[in-house]
Order: sequence, then structure tokens, then C-alpha cells
Amino acid sequence: MSGIIYLDNSATTKPCETAIENINNALKTTWGNPSSLYDLGVDSEVLIDGVREDISSIIGADSNEIYFSGSGTEANNLALIGAANALKRRGNKIVTTSVEHPSVLNTCKFLEGNGFEVTYISPEPDGHIDAEKFISAIDEKTILVSVMLVNNETGAIFPVSEIAFGAKEKNKNIIVHSDCVQAFGKLAIDVSDLGCDLISASAHKIHGPKGIGILYKSKKCNIKPLILGGGQEKGLRSGTESVPLIAGLGGAVKELNISEANKHVENLYNYAMEKLSNLGDVVVNSPTQTRLPYILNISVNGFRSETLLHFLESKKIYVSSGSACSKGKGSHVLTEMGLSQDRTDSALRISFSKLNKMQDIDALYEALVLATKTLRRK
Amino acid sequence: MSGIIYLDNSATTKPCETAIENINNALKTTWGNPSSLYDLGVDSEVLIDGVREDISSIIGADSNEIYFSGSGTEANNLALIGAANALKRRGNKIVTTSVEHPSVLNTCKFLEGNGFEVTYISPEPDGHIDAEKFISAIDEKTILVSVMLVNNETGAIFPVSEIAFGAKEKNKNIIVHSDCVQAFGKLAIDVSDLGCDLISASAHKIHGPKGIGILYKSKKCNIKPLILGGGQEKGLRSGTESVPLIAGLGGAVKELNISEANKHVENLYNYAMEKLSNLGDVVVNSPTQTRLPYILNISVNGFRSETLLHFLESKKIYVSSGSACSKGKGSHVLTEMGLSQDRTDSALRISFSKLNKMQDIDALYEALVLATKTLRRK
Repeated sequence: MSGIIYLDNSATTKPCETAIENINNALKTTWGNPSSLYDLGVDSEVLIDGVREDISSIIGADSNEIYFSGSGTEANNLALIGAANALKRRGNKIVTTSVEHPSVLNTCKFLEGNGFEVTYISPEPDGHIDAEKFISAIDEKTILVSVMLVNNETGAIFPVSEIAFGAKEKNKNIIVHSDCVQAFGKLAIDVSDLGCDLISASAHKIHGPKGIGILYKSKKCNIKPLILGGGQEKGLRSGTESVPLIAGLGGAVKELNISEANKHVENLYNYAMEKLSNLGDVVVNSPTQTRLPYILNISVNGFRSETLLHFLESKKIYVSSGSACSKGKGSHVLTEMGLSQDRTDSALRISFSKLNKMQDIDALYEALVLATKTLRRK
Repeated sequence: MSGIIYLDNSATTKPCETAIENINNALKTTWGNPSSLYDLGVDSEVLIDGVREDISSIIGADSNEIYFSGSGTEANNLALIGAANALKRRGNKIVTTSVEHPSVLNTCKFLEGNGFEVTYISPEPDGHIDAEKFISAIDEKTILVSVMLVNNETGAIFPVSEIAFGAKEKNKNIIVHSDCVQAFGKLAIDVSDLGCDLISASAHKIHGPKGIGILYKSKKCNIKPLILGGGQEKGLRSGTESVPLIAGLGGAVKELNISEANKHVENLYNYAMEKLSNLGDVVVNSPTQTRLPYILNISVNGFRSETLLHFLESKKIYVSSGSACSKGKGSHVLTEMGLSQDRTDSALRISFSKLNKMQDIDALYEALVLATKTLRRK
């Protein structure tokens, strides 16, 4: 994998050394079943509780408010279905945005098929969500609100805190969830400041392993489990805990240095903006303000996303045409922002990590120059 | 971990070298998102499809009938809830046994709360399930049947094939599920012979990593997903696939040599039966026939399970008092078999793997001799 230029860090990230080391230690040494009553099991339990502690401390939560799931997607499903089922006697309305990740949108569609009514707030043309518009959609029958903190395609930071406190003001029993998969480890999060009852995150977006997600659940809020069985995770998510992956997630969390990484990535972002503006025929789809520098979404007019993506791939430069989960389908996020079909069809998501270098941007720029000179326009 | 005598292999197993090696390769090299459109993503997809192929070939399935989940528990939940929701227009009755794993029993209880009617067939005094009795409980409103292949506490092999074909004869639209978590990799399974539409298994019971389960779903049968999102696993289980754990599972599967391991474990079982019979005051709770040699459940009269378990732990010998998932609660399996409270309270589950040696039995025997001499009777 040496020699590659990986600029698709919102799809997944390269696991860090500490994560890999911790996974190996767990596989070789701490392999007891955390539910076993003897020391070998207790060692596993202690390990996972230590990671719970580490995660809780960086988001200002209590360690017993951290739950592990099999993915960020599962954490989102558990949050939404679990909250909806817990509160269905109180009301049946849910408010979310139309630009959430498929794991929120498709779960909302599922809930619509089960008696719930979902309002989807569309973004403004710049990709942002208007907090007032969102809050005004909340009424006395609303039981659940879900807004992502950072949009996975544009990097727009949504006004979660404003929405959360506004929602609670309208109805203190509302459960507020935020999909923080793209924000966790990149943006400083404090659960009290954010005002959310439920927060989802994922290890593999922060140089941890694939297959492990996080759900923060405030102790003030009760939701129903999605997966039933032996009662692990205090009954909220049964199934033997993936001790090695939790250990790996712990390693990735230990390696986080949010402010330092953010500074570096902000430089990458600004340099990319400057360089790519020389290209001509490039428009930026990411918002200019209140955005995370980890994601830069552009459209190169006249060229289809896939064509460029595969051209870049041939140079061992990796970007995506949208969310990895949408696997090449047109972006619902850009469409919801009201961008033209042409612009949506030409979108490239460039997403950084702390591992990227300025030279990566140079290489991307040069490859795009070559692409626009040699490829056939659509 | 050297110097320990691990006899709790039904709770979990020590990950094998090949599994660990594969996990490391995936973490270091094959870390692309399987949904990404470029080669780095395709490599991950190829890896997981290779494991699908390997698993399918040992159970006589097609590779596109193999789905990955986050645990055996999730596979059981997906099978039952997914099948029940898919067939709810046809009927609302489910038939299972009263001695299933909590991931089946608690899922059935959840379904009971959602309009389904569940019949729980109790075992015979020897721990076996009477196929005729089971089949006679199936009627025209029955949509789903679930029977485990090997009981996780006694090792009893249940007549899944007889029940499956009997059920289909009564009603060809019935979906038949079998929890094969304790059977997979230990008992030769052929999905056609077994007659099941759905089969669950887990990696960490066969020297693979914790956090990855398998669902075999016959292509003739349709079920609803439990976790929604990006549509991974052909829409049946969304969320980025845990490439490293799937790779690890693949390593564990490659190391399987069912008949050789079975021969070795049968010798361990017979030797343990012989040795432990010298103890006096020992009764065997596992059935004498149609049982898997991997699990030997005994009761040492006059001593509480936990007392013995912790005494053995002090000698670095690990057994369990029942299922790890029940975490010390009394065994529902032995209670359902009609065993006395005294006998249930004294139960020890000794569970073997191919890694155990005859000397492990000697050490267990000697420790139990010492225990019965020195510990206070209850």
C-alpha cells in the first residue's frame, strides 16, 4: 500500500499502529469471554471498561453511558429504533434532515412503515441546515429528533446544539440523537454542550478497525434494545463483545489529538482550495463557513465523477464520488442542496486525515490537470 | 496465558495463529472500504467474498447464501425477526424449544410482544428434543421454526433435520432456522441434508475472533433486514463490513479439520467421563447418546457451581457454571430438563477444543478431588 495517495478518509481510514497493537494483544492475551465469571473473563471486561472510560472522558460523558455496537450504522439504528419504540406511547413524530447518512434515512423510512411520521428538513443551498426551520417542525407529537453533526459528503457542520436545546425547550421529553460518525475524533464534542441524549460514532473513521461502533446514551434517557440475547452492554446490545475491536478502538482514541490534527488538516484544506482553484471549471460544493476541513466536495465541470475517480485511481490517488455507502449512486445530499444534475454528476469528495501531506494535494492537482486535458468531456 | 488449562471452549476459544495473521494482513494491507469503487475497496470486497466462498463450501451452500453479522447473537436475531416480519401476513405462530440460547429465547419473547405466538417445546429428561412432539406443535398458522443443532449447555444434538423436513411437509412455506453456533466447525453440516433455510454461526467459538457472526440464508427464502443503511450484505445487514474480522474468521475456517478434531475431542470426552466417575458424587447432565463430545456437563453433588468454578480458577483451570451469557444465573436448560435444584446449582460445564490435552483432564480431576476434600459442602 506504499506509494498510494489516500484522500478518501471519510469512507474509511488506515488503522493506526496503536490500534493494531491493541488488537493483537487482545487476540493473543485478553481472549476470555467478558461474561465469564473467572479472571480470564474479568480481564476482558476490564479492558472494555477501560476503553469506555477513555471514550467517555473525551466527550464529557460518564463511562457507563458508552455502549459498543458492530458499526456506526448499527449505533444509528439502535438509537432511532430504540428511541422510537421506547417513546411510541407518547407520540409518533420524528424530525430529521433530508441529508442524513443512509443508516439514518433508511431507518426513518423503516419507522415510517411502522406507524411513525417523519419530517425531513432540507438543507439550504449552501448545504447548511437552518436551525429555526428545523425547530419549527417540532410539535407536541414529536418524540425524536436526529441531526448529524458533520455531513459526510460536504463537511458542513450542522447546528446540533441549537436544535437540541430548541427541541427540549419545546418538549423536554423529546429524545435528541446526533450521528457523529464524521465528527467524532475530529471536532471537539462535549455531550453537555451538544445537548444530545444519543450520539453515534464509528472506529474506522478515526484510524481504528472496521466492525465497531459507539453509542453514547445519556443515563437520563431510556431506549429499547435492537439485538436481544445474553444481556451484554447492560441489556442494550446482546452478543459477546468484540474485545479485540474494542481494544483497537481504544488504541485509535488514545492516538487522537483533535486540535493538532485539525490544524494540519485545515492547512491541507486551504492549500487544496488554493491549488484546485487554478484548475478552472471547478466549483466547490462544500460550504465556505461552519465546515469541517476534513471533507472538501468539488465538481469538475464537464467530467463525470466516476471517470475522474478511475483516472485518479490509475495514478494511485483515491477519492470518492460521494459516500462510500452509496456505491456510485448519485448523491442525495447534493441533490437536496438543489445543485444541478450536471454538478452532482461531477462531484468528487476529497477527504483528508492527519496522515496526508501537502504533496498529496500537489499530486491530486497534477493528476486532475492531466485528466481535464486528456479525458473526454461528458 | 501460558500454564492455563482452558476447559470453557463453548464460551469462547483462543484465536488461532492463522486467524491472527489474517486479521493483521487486513488491518495493514486490505483496509479499503469494501463499498469503495476503486481497487483498494475492491481488494476488501474480494477478501470477504473469498471467505464467503470458503464458508459456503464446507456447509454445501452457495457463496451468495452467506452473510456476515456482528455476532452469532445478531445472526439469530436477524434470522428470527427477519423471518417473522417477512411472513407475518401468512401467520403469527413460531415453534422453538425452551432450551435455546438466550439470543433465540429473548428474541422470541420480543416477538411475543409484537403479535406473534410462540410455542416452546421442552426437552425430555435426557436433554433431547422429541422431533414428533415438536412437529405436532406446528399448524397452518406456523410461519417459523427454530431449533438449535447442539445445545450449548449439554452438548445434546437435536433432530434438526427431522424437524425441518417434518415442518416443511406440514407447510412448505415455513421458514426453518437453526442456531448452529455450537455445532459449526465441530459437526459436519450440509445445508441440504439439514433442510434449514437459515443457519447461524459464530467465529469466536471456532478459534476465530469475537465480533463476527455468520448467517446462512437459502436463496429460496426471503427475510427482512434488522439493521438498515447503505445496503451492504445485499441489503440484509447494512454497515461497513468488518474486513479484518471476516479475514480472521476465514483463517479459523481454513484451520478446521472437523473429523480429526472430533476424534481427538471424543477421546478427551471419554477419558474425562472415566476419570470423573472415580470422583464419586458426580452425575453427568449431558446425554449419553446423540451428543457432541465438545461439551460435558456434570454436577458435583454437595458443591455449588460457583464455589467449584472459583476453586478451579485458583488452579488456573477454567470451566463454567453454564452458558457464559447467563453470567452465573441458574441454568434454564437443566431446569427445563427437570433436574433438581440441587443438581442444577452444582452444574459444571466442561467444554473442550482441539487444543486440550489428556493432561488437562488429569489436572481437572486432581483439582476436583482436592476441592471435594477441602471445600465446605453447601
